[in-house]
Amino acid sequence: MIEPKVLKGFRDTLPEAMIAKKEIIKILEEIFERFGFVPIDTPALEYSEILLGKGGGETDKQVYRFNDHGGRDVALRFDLTVPLARFVSQHYNELTFPFKRYHIAPVWRGENTQKGRYREFYQCDFDILGTNSLNSDIEILLIIREGLLRLKIDNFKIYINNRKILNAFLKKFGLEDKSVLILRTLDKIYKIGIDKVEKELVDEIGVNSTLVDKMLNFLNLKEGKFALENEEIFNTLEKYKAILQEEYNKPVFELEYVFRTLSELDIINNYSFNPAITRGLDYYTGNVFETFVLDKTDFGSICSGGRYDNLTALYSQVKITGVGASFGLDRIMALLEEKGILTKKESNTDILIFNLDDSLNVEYHKLASEFRKRGLNVETVFEKVKINNQFKIAEKKGIKFVLFAGEEEIKEQKYNVKNILEKREYTKIPLDEIVKLIKEEKK
Amino acid sequence: MIEPKVLKGFRDTLPEAMIAKKEIIKILEEIFERFGFVPIDTPALEYSEILLGKGGGETDKQVYRFNDHGGRDVALRFDLTVPLARFVSQHYNELTFPFKRYHIAPVWRGENTQKGRYREFYQCDFDILGTNSLNSDIEILLIIREGLLRLKIDNFKIYINNRKILNAFLKKFGLEDKSVLILRTLDKIYKIGIDKVEKELVDEIGVNSTLVDKMLNFLNLKEGKFALENEEIFNTLEKYKAILQEEYNKPVFELEYVFRTLSELDIINNYSFNPAITRGLDYYTGNVFETFVLDKTDFGSICSGGRYDNLTALYSQVKITGVGASFGLDRIMALLEEKGILTKKESNTDILIFNLDDSLNVEYHKLASEFRKRGLNVETVFEKVKINNQFKIAEKKGIKFVLFAGEEEIKEQKYNVKNILEKREYTKIPLDEIVKLIKEEKK
Repeated sequence: MIEPKVLKGFRDTLPEAMIAKKEIIKILEEIFERFGFVPIDTPALEYSEILLGKGGGETDKQVYRFNDHGGRDVALRFDLTVPLARFVSQHYNELTFPFKRYHIAPVWRGENTQKGRYREFYQCDFDILGTNSLNSDIEILLIIREGLLRLKIDNFKIYINNRKILNAFLKKFGLEDKSVLILRTLDKIYKIGIDKVEKELVDEIGVNSTLVDKMLNFLNLKEGKFALENEEIFNTLEKYKAILQEEYNKPVFELEYVFRTLSELDIINNYSFNPAITRGLDYYTGNVFETFVLDKTDFGSICSGGRYDNLTALYSQVKITGVGASFGLDRIMALLEEKGILTKKESNTDILIFNLDDSLNVEYHKLASEFRKRGLNVETVFEKVKINNQFKIAEKKGIKFVLFAGEEEIKEQKYNVKNILEKREYTKIPLDEIVKLIKEEKK
Repeated sequence: MIEPKVLKGFRDTLPEAMIAKKEIIKILEEIFERFGFVPIDTPALEYSEILLGKGGGETDKQVYRFNDHGGRDVALRFDLTVPLARFVSQHYNELTFPFKRYHIAPVWRGENTQKGRYREFYQCDFDILGTNSLNSDIEILLIIREGLLRLKIDNFKIYINNRKILNAFLKKFGLEDKSVLILRTLDKIYKIGIDKVEKELVDEIGVNSTLVDKMLNFLNLKEGKFALENEEIFNTLEKYKAILQEEYNKPVFELEYVFRTLSELDIINNYSFNPAITRGLDYYTGNVFETFVLDKTDFGSICSGGRYDNLTALYSQVKITGVGASFGLDRIMALLEEKGILTKKESNTDILIFNLDDSLNVEYHKLASEFRKRGLNVETVFEKVKINNQFKIAEKKGIKFVLFAGEEEIKEQKYNVKNILEKREYTKIPLDEIVKLIKEEKK
């Protein structure tokens, strides 16, 4: 006998969780399609060189990498962005740009499994490729909002920043060559706080303390209130324009366009300007986004993304720009669970047809078929067992309605139905009335 | 630069194919839910011992197997049945039986890539576990039929056999000890023909030639017409009863119950009795099913399955019986393609809002939002480019309707719309009429 178990960091999805997960995915897919996004898929397994680049990088250790039967160096995808870059490079001539795609699929990372992290998890990416228009950034921001609202997450804020603004500041004040180090330090502000950031910038990176002061002021970090809202946003952007002056102003205008549009669409309440967000040292080059639920910030960002200049640098001479984001499916599920609004259903079955007599099985099949034709999800009890046990099946599967039909009911085509949740009984009612009853309840 | 390519035997799914695939999956999922099936998921990666059993078997060479970072011997799943066996053994106490689950997910096999076989492909399994009732076999057979009808595949036949009938014959005539060899030979009948099968049985396996004759007659193979229909089925089953007599009769009654029920449900035309089907030497122990499209038999069986006695033998002392089948998604897609009824859409977008002036972008966002609220899928052109190029976007994406709105139209809230497929134009009509128009067309 082999002990049935899964690998550390992996997990099964049982019906209840899978029903909930599929509901979330369905809602997000519907939103993506509302905005004209199309689905694609790529292989789970690719050449390691494709996924890691020549030589491989920091993620290397986390990647499931091995030699296949043909001796090829292969790896399981660890995100959906690298495969996207390979995909658009390879199929460039088959795609219509702007190319708006979504991709919901599992990825694998052999990382530390502490803190509820899994080694197999779903990503849910959506990107617009092949346009520099800020209207595509705005569309990504609209989708994040729509998606979360449709998932009944309301108390969220989408933080926006533009990396180029800090870069412009660094350029203007001659700190360009230290920008990587400075960004890395600033990125720690939530973790280590403003004082330590200040100290590190002066002592370790060697930035003049007056300039550090100026920079932290510029980024609004001094006031300890990172996120700016409504009019504060536009005031701060005016301040930026004054400091950066015409030469370095462009990214400020870009951000202003985004916020101005959100304001005119009357949805700016869901967004704020947060100069502290840089999204690490990854490939983003323009606007960056993170999304927090205000009373549950400990869940981290539930949807992040940004604009990138050159997605396909590794695989193509054609430069493809883009903007996109990714919903954190697992975090969203955990969040809905904690808020008590995650769907909890053991099945989607509407009605269970009891088995009162094995000689009536054909009739039960027929009856089930009639209900199914009318759009209901139906199960029949396959064998006559004690009525109590039939009730137990319904209860365990969370089926609200059960139907009893003996020979008489079959002949009269009128059936006895019980709503077991609300303990309501209906005697001898015809099929179409049962359908009506159940559809009413489902609304 | 790294050449963008996928591994041999792997492939990308581009939007058109992915839209079609998702439509098929959606239809099958809906059917599964109509019958009360619930979705589950299991990890792509498992312990090799779990997937291959102690020692590993014949499939071994095809399996993607390697050592992970922790030195564990792991493998990518090569089907969804072994993971299901592990899953029900592990979660036995959390599940409600009969447990009806479906699982649509990719599996990986490093097999020869000739003949259009892929090394990564989707399986679409549905099983009923924990009941011996033949009504569950019937339910599986109903689902196969419903699924194919909903996919608009009509000219199909679901072949049914019961392995136990041949076993009964072999027992009755003292050939039980040779049954594995005999089954293996019979299984080749489609490939090598009746004469060679007969020769092999006599010369190589050493069955008395009178008995071979009796057996091939018994299985109706002599007449060269393997598939029996309607009354032929019941006549043949009567013949079996006479030959096998009471002692060995039980499996004949089982098959008779299945066909009798299908007949009473008035759908027997979609089924036939085919004594030649044994489904190789796999784990099926009772009824077995295969499905062929009559004018496209070269596609092979598009949905196969059967009943098994002990799914969980490897992982649990609890014996779990079941019955199930699997739709061949790739074959079904290829079949629909050849029949010319595969969905061919580059996007699901209903209407494209043209960009006549970049100063109107906020208005275009607002307009798109109004359409989306009313359930339409909408794209906007992000930047003003030549009108011809905007038409090209619509054409390439297969978007039927385009909308033009300048300052005047925006002010009046009446827009110009063109159905570019049918070259119909509508001048200055309000939003709700456009919605009505498009919804009419979609019906």
